[in-house]
Amino acid sequence: MISYHFGGKEGLYSSVLQEQFSCFEDIEEIKTQISDPLIKIEDYIRWTITRHRNNPYLLRYYTSELTNPTKYFTSLVQPAIRKVILFLIEVVEDGIAKNLFRKDLDPVDTVLAMAGMVNYYFLSMLATQDLINHSPDREEELIRHYMDIFARGILGCQRNSTI
Amino acid sequence: MISYHFGGKEGLYSSVLQEQFSCFEDIEEIKTQISDPLIKIEDYIRWTITRHRNNPYLLRYYTSELTNPTKYFTSLVQPAIRKVILFLIEVVEDGIAKNLFRKDLDPVDTVLAMAGMVNYYFLSMLATQDLINHSPDREEELIRHYMDIFARGILGCQRNSTI
Repeated sequence: MISYHFGGKEGLYSSVLQEQFSCFEDIEEIKTQISDPLIKIEDYIRWTITRHRNNPYLLRYYTSELTNPTKYFTSLVQPAIRKVILFLIEVVEDGIAKNLFRKDLDPVDTVLAMAGMVNYYFLSMLATQDLINHSPDREEELIRHYMDIFARGILGCQRNSTI
Repeated sequence: MISYHFGGKEGLYSSVLQEQFSCFEDIEEIKTQISDPLIKIEDYIRWTITRHRNNPYLLRYYTSELTNPTKYFTSLVQPAIRKVILFLIEVVEDGIAKNLFRKDLDPVDTVLAMAGMVNYYFLSMLATQDLINHSPDREEELIRHYMDIFARGILGCQRNSTI
């Protein structure tokens, strides 16, 4: 059956990869919105959370391909990840151009920080089960905390205003 | 040979895991320093970068155990990760208590954001090779960018001071 429908185990694996990474296409919906760079970042965080909630095995394939790539990495995985990263770089560059974000911000480092922050929440789940409530009910609170950190930094206002 | 020295494949795997995660013990060195919470965060970032540079396969075992745990996860992997996360939670709580960090900061969310940021830089390497220079020469610059994001947020000072 597997060999008939998918052309063997390898074909099956590439089908699974394609299905798992198809959700990355939806970045187009955020991309075409006319909105503030900060709102686009929030949309990206919300979208990433939804991707992990809807695809509980996504991180398994995602991290496996990034740390131990198969021959499908270049054709199926890398383009999906790059598309999102390149979109976020544009958002950060737009924010800098609009004087909304710091001029000395490095767009790529910033984007990797952002993507890492939200993906790690899901990656670390098994190790942090008793430290944090991972329920979807807390999602808006989590998004608010992440946006707060990203938009204001962790220092108080007083200290921020003197930098 | 393998079966003599390690008690079979399983024993070998647990030896490799133990070796890979032994570097997590070094968190004690940062822990015992008497220093500003912000300096401890910078030390953590620098230490994590060193861990990944010295152990190129660490992320492979780390992500594999988190997304597809073996029977060794609970005894070998979880305690190593928890130790670091609990230490960072203490650092953030200390920063809040000292009025250095925002009162409304959620310590656990903040720590996961921090750990995610620095780990993802290494996790995403294969997908971002042409977007960023991953050379160790750029490390101090990277640490500065991550500290900037974390300590000040991505908005300019003017905006920060009005929040």
